[in-house]
Amino acid sequence: MKGWRIPAFGIEKLEKVELPDPAPQRGEVLVRVHAVSWNYRDLMMTLGKYNPRMKLPRIPCSDGAGEVAAVGEGVTRVQVGDRVAGIFMQNWIDGDADAAKTRGALGGDIDGMLREFVVLNERGVVHFPVHLSWEEAATLPCAGVTAWNALVHAGGIKAGDTVVILGTGGVSVFALQFAKMMGARVLGTSSSDAKLERAKALGLDAGINYRAQPAWDEWVMAETGGKGADIVVEVGGAGTLTRSLRSLRIGGAVAQIGVLSEGGEGIEVPLLLSRQVHLRGIYVGSRADFEMMNRAVSQQKLKPVVDEVFSFGDAPAALRRMQSGTHFGKVVTSVMH
Amino acid sequence: MKGWRIPAFGIEKLEKVELPDPAPQRGEVLVRVHAVSWNYRDLMMTLGKYNPRMKLPRIPCSDGAGEVAAVGEGVTRVQVGDRVAGIFMQNWIDGDADAAKTRGALGGDIDGMLREFVVLNERGVVHFPVHLSWEEAATLPCAGVTAWNALVHAGGIKAGDTVVILGTGGVSVFALQFAKMMGARVLGTSSSDAKLERAKALGLDAGINYRAQPAWDEWVMAETGGKGADIVVEVGGAGTLTRSLRSLRIGGAVAQIGVLSEGGEGIEVPLLLSRQVHLRGIYVGSRADFEMMNRAVSQQKLKPVVDEVFSFGDAPAALRRMQSGTHFGKVVTSVMH
Amino acid sequence: MKGWRIPAFGIEKLEKVELPDPAPQRGEVLVRVHAVSWNYRDLMMTLGKYNPRMKLPRIPCSDGAGEVAAVGEGVTRVQVGDRVAGIFMQNWIDGDADAAKTRGALGGDIDGMLREFVVLNERGVVHFPVHLSWEEAATLPCAGVTAWNALVHAGGIKAGDTVVILGTGGVSVFALQFAKMMGARVLGTSSSDAKLERAKALGLDAGINYRAQPAWDEWVMAETGGKGADIVVEVGGAGTLTRSLRSLRIGGAVAQIGVLSEGGEGIEVPLLLSRQVHLRGIYVGSRADFEMMNRAVSQQKLKPVVDEVFSFGDAPAALRRMQSGTHFGKVVTSVMH
Amino acid sequence: MKGWRIPAFGIEKLEKVELPDPAPQRGEVLVRVHAVSWNYRDLMMTLGKYNPRMKLPRIPCSDGAGEVAAVGEGVTRVQVGDRVAGIFMQNWIDGDADAAKTRGALGGDIDGMLREFVVLNERGVVHFPVHLSWEEAATLPCAGVTAWNALVHAGGIKAGDTVVILGTGGVSVFALQFAKMMGARVLGTSSSDAKLERAKALGLDAGINYRAQPAWDEWVMAETGGKGADIVVEVGGAGTLTRSLRSLRIGGAVAQIGVLSEGGEGIEVPLLLSRQVHLRGIYVGSRADFEMMNRAVSQQKLKPVVDEVFSFGDAPAALRRMQSGTHFGKVVTSVMH
Repeated sequence: MKGWRIPAFGIEKLEKVELPDPAPQRGEVLVRVHAVSWNYRDLMMTLGKYNPRMKLPRIPCSDGAGEVAAVGEGVTRVQVGDRVAGIFMQNWIDGDADAAKTRGALGGDIDGMLREFVVLNERGVVHFPVHLSWEEAATLPCAGVTAWNALVHAGGIKAGDTVVILGTGGVSVFALQFAKMMGARVLGTSSSDAKLERAKALGLDAGINYRAQPAWDEWVMAETGGKGADIVVEVGGAGTLTRSLRSLRIGGAVAQIGVLSEGGEGIEVPLLLSRQVHLRGIYVGSRADFEMMNRAVSQQKLKPVVDEVFSFGDAPAALRRMQSGTHFGKVVTSVMH
Repeated sequence: MKGWRIPAFGIEKLEKVELPDPAPQRGEVLVRVHAVSWNYRDLMMTLGKYNPRMKLPRIPCSDGAGEVAAVGEGVTRVQVGDRVAGIFMQNWIDGDADAAKTRGALGGDIDGMLREFVVLNERGVVHFPVHLSWEEAATLPCAGVTAWNALVHAGGIKAGDTVVILGTGGVSVFALQFAKMMGARVLGTSSSDAKLERAKALGLDAGINYRAQPAWDEWVMAETGGKGADIVVEVGGAGTLTRSLRSLRIGGAVAQIGVLSEGGEGIEVPLLLSRQVHLRGIYVGSRADFEMMNRAVSQQKLKPVVDEVFSFGDAPAALRRMQSGTHFGKVVTSVMH
Repeated sequence: MKGWRIPAFGIEKLEKVELPDPAPQRGEVLVRVHAVSWNYRDLMMTLGKYNPRMKLPRIPCSDGAGEVAAVGEGVTRVQVGDRVAGIFMQNWIDGDADAAKTRGALGGDIDGMLREFVVLNERGVVHFPVHLSWEEAATLPCAGVTAWNALVHAGGIKAGDTVVILGTGGVSVFALQFAKMMGARVLGTSSSDAKLERAKALGLDAGINYRAQPAWDEWVMAETGGKGADIVVEVGGAGTLTRSLRSLRIGGAVAQIGVLSEGGEGIEVPLLLSRQVHLRGIYVGSRADFEMMNRAVSQQKLKPVVDEVFSFGDAPAALRRMQSGTHFGKVVTSVMH
Repeated sequence: MKGWRIPAFGIEKLEKVELPDPAPQRGEVLVRVHAVSWNYRDLMMTLGKYNPRMKLPRIPCSDGAGEVAAVGEGVTRVQVGDRVAGIFMQNWIDGDADAAKTRGALGGDIDGMLREFVVLNERGVVHFPVHLSWEEAATLPCAGVTAWNALVHAGGIKAGDTVVILGTGGVSVFALQFAKMMGARVLGTSSSDAKLERAKALGLDAGINYRAQPAWDEWVMAETGGKGADIVVEVGGAGTLTRSLRSLRIGGAVAQIGVLSEGGEGIEVPLLLSRQVHLRGIYVGSRADFEMMNRAVSQQKLKPVVDEVFSFGDAPAALRRMQSGTHFGKVVTSVMH
């Protein structure tokens, strides 16, 4: 079978190679991958910025969806022909995270999904909602689950809350969709008026172009009658954390879900205190989170937003799309068989 | 001013009387009542079944909305002209309930809202959403807050949950609306196909006529693929609690919000255990709950369902409507000035 | 190897038999059982009252501790020589319960621990605190985890709370110990003054002999200054649930953990409402609960209370001790090799 | 009556002055102050570092205990002769904080307790545990409630948890006492071996002198078998936040309760994410928190740790003691009448 791997850091180094055909052992399933999606983490990984000491070569991509092509002995959770997606951390099934559960992240400390076939433990896959295409399903494992966890499981969002999203990348667009699904009001920032318009078509209640108006924290305060937002989904662009904290109501929460910027950022501790802020690091979520999200996605017939679909033949093209920062929603690579 | 009171138990005993004009003291507000709504509790109260030892005469009705006509010294929360509703328990402002907070229930241990003017402590009123009429606002204090608390505050409802409502009275219809607002699926029971159709127009996903099919618990199980519902909003009709428990998924919750039936009911303790049920008594909620609900109602522009509006001149007519059991949503009395 | 099994219902029917020597497959461990403990459930099971349709013969006992004697291929969680206990439901590892997780209860729908050797999945065992003997460790899986879940995980107990325990069986004595460990006050009932004295030696703050004073709910109210208790650990003796509800403060909780009585009991729904009660069915707990409990037991050097240790040769003797109702804490059977 | 006030920033500027005798209005109580305690905030306030724009003159001290000397009309919560303490934020009675509730902090935006008499709203005082002296009771409102909220209400501490305290100031010593009361293990840092010994006498399980071993985060990791602590009570000394984050287990929490250092501190966002940290700003707590804490303090007969008692005649002496950093527990000033 074919697959892509990172032999050395750099987008241009990515190579498409012939890999041994995998076979499922006891308790394992063979998945014929039909689509993968890309996260900012994959870009950083490829560039060597996420984990400069990552063992190479490494097959990238945490997120993929496909069809069960074969099952090993003793498998009971899935059958041949089932449509499944892999879970981000292969060992985080349920409950709170711990060191053991957060080992085995696809495309990170183990090989990822950018290949024609992958063998996973049967516990490491979920059935995805039937109304989704392969490409749509491939967007869920990292960005979808992260947004769900940030807002629903850890965030405890409720109707009437005000949520702030930063930009229109994969997680932010899912956060917009989930927040609207749960009756919240959503305010958003972007560097592009066109993207704000697109977000409004998905339910964004109000948007601000931070190029034109950098002080978006003051805008959030004005939009909320001086009270501040309930939850900010913080994807970690340079210099945003302080504005996020300043955008919060007393007792509000920052869901810190990503690291778009490099290096630490000074936080104003007195602000943490006087606003009684919850600042919570969200690192994707468990399989149980994934399944709860799927239940909601199925019921509400929610459609993930696919920015553009690239072909398996040109993996670097998808990464360059990520790198351009011009995408809206999720960048996907389709794996034809 | 005029008001209605219960001099002795019985609908036919209700009398319209001349009452002294009240004046607000320090910290108090005078409210010109424009509409009141009726709850099953008011019916039971009038019939002497809710609290046979209630001190009489008593002005009925916990729920009313009106305009601030005057304020006492030191009042800061409201101004003359503000549109407000009273809160059910005048002393339950925030946090968990206790004995002190649950004293002072309007139309129960203190006089209620069925009068032209009422004086309340400034802490005992809330501003209601601006898009609501007096009649709509009058539906909120008991039924609205109860449904909100049952599903959102205490219930922790999330998108993808399945909620079961029993019948189409005031609380059940609010529960339907709130559950849909938060992305849940709602199953409902009724004795009337016409009411089920009306509920479907409000978002009910599926309904069952329990006259035709009494085993609605089995139907819930079938509708949920054998898993059971996440939350049942139990209004306490005769014999329903056992079916409610049988309708739940493992770990599911019954929000016990009302007492439509008389007398205790045997519960199957083994069922509580094997299903790991949460059975929780919900007794309206705090002012903070009311305010959170209002925030959501405002934002989603939710319209409470008013069954029929009766005139202040004929209070018994509204009660007879309640008694008929043919209403859908909230029965209201308009107070003309 | 030797083991005991229930060929037909009745204590006298229990038979000690020769069983095939088990061998661990991939992912499994062979445990040399050193001690088992008995729960009321085992008694009901043997008598045919817990599940009259249970498939027979069945090896009883959910709770046992022993030494890992061999491991199958691929086992990583334990090593030969490790001291472990089995978990009650072999598939409930973490997170909330569901149908799949609550299948596989030892000594219930699968064979239990009353035998010299048992093979379990490596996921189905935990290491127990090093300061415990085999007999003490064998008390933990059902009674210990149930009490922990009732008070700590589900119960959210905190210092200053008042907890009520009913009687001095296995769960109640663990509840007493855990509640004291977390700074709570504990009130207890018993039919025996001598047992109350023994409980006081373990930290019981006050006790009542319900033979002498049946209205123990009134006593709880008096002891709490008329406020009521925060949590009642309800083991389900005949007619206790109503008194438990009446013993609660507003917003208090009943942890319904057992079924000592037969048949349903009428509950007073108005009491549920006016007290805003949480009534929650607790059915043991997950492996994660077990591990959290073990961490606390280790740290506090807590010693489980062993009532009496019986020999493997006379399993019925232990059951008769359970049946007598005269035990205090846990009845144990030692398995000599 | 006499009182102390800050006419201009600086300890040496503090002046003892004659103030008008206050009289309680409707709903208010007059308290004869017997003792006040000092917090680091009072020191910063006096130095002009906490809020350089604070309106002067200002009477300092948030924390005081005394006797009700008179009550205004309509007061029902207390009686003349009751022993009470003031609550830190006079408007935060219950529930979650908001802007309105966090106004009215004693010794901050309103005058504080360092005077012979003070008039407070009856809602702004609590009865304190009867086994406490005036001096002990005066330590509770800020430091006690903060530690309680950090660990119990917001922190959800449970037996078996590992808590890290930094230094041995007022909050840290209360945190030590509360953590031990709830069955946790406590690790602590100090610049003084003598203080670590004193902390061990109060239950500290292990301590490290950060002068001798600055890398106390590595020590916490070693002490917890590489897992990390559950909760760090972060009092905000210079450069500690990063070490606090590094001391945590995956999913662990930092309760950010103070600002001992000046200026913002860079936090490592990747650490927040990979450890899935909760970082929560704790700003004292509500009256309900205070009352819950008092219930536990009463029941466990916990004695607050008073470092030294200074006389009312020399307020600066107490502040200099705070400034020296050599105190252990709470610095108190006694107000003789």
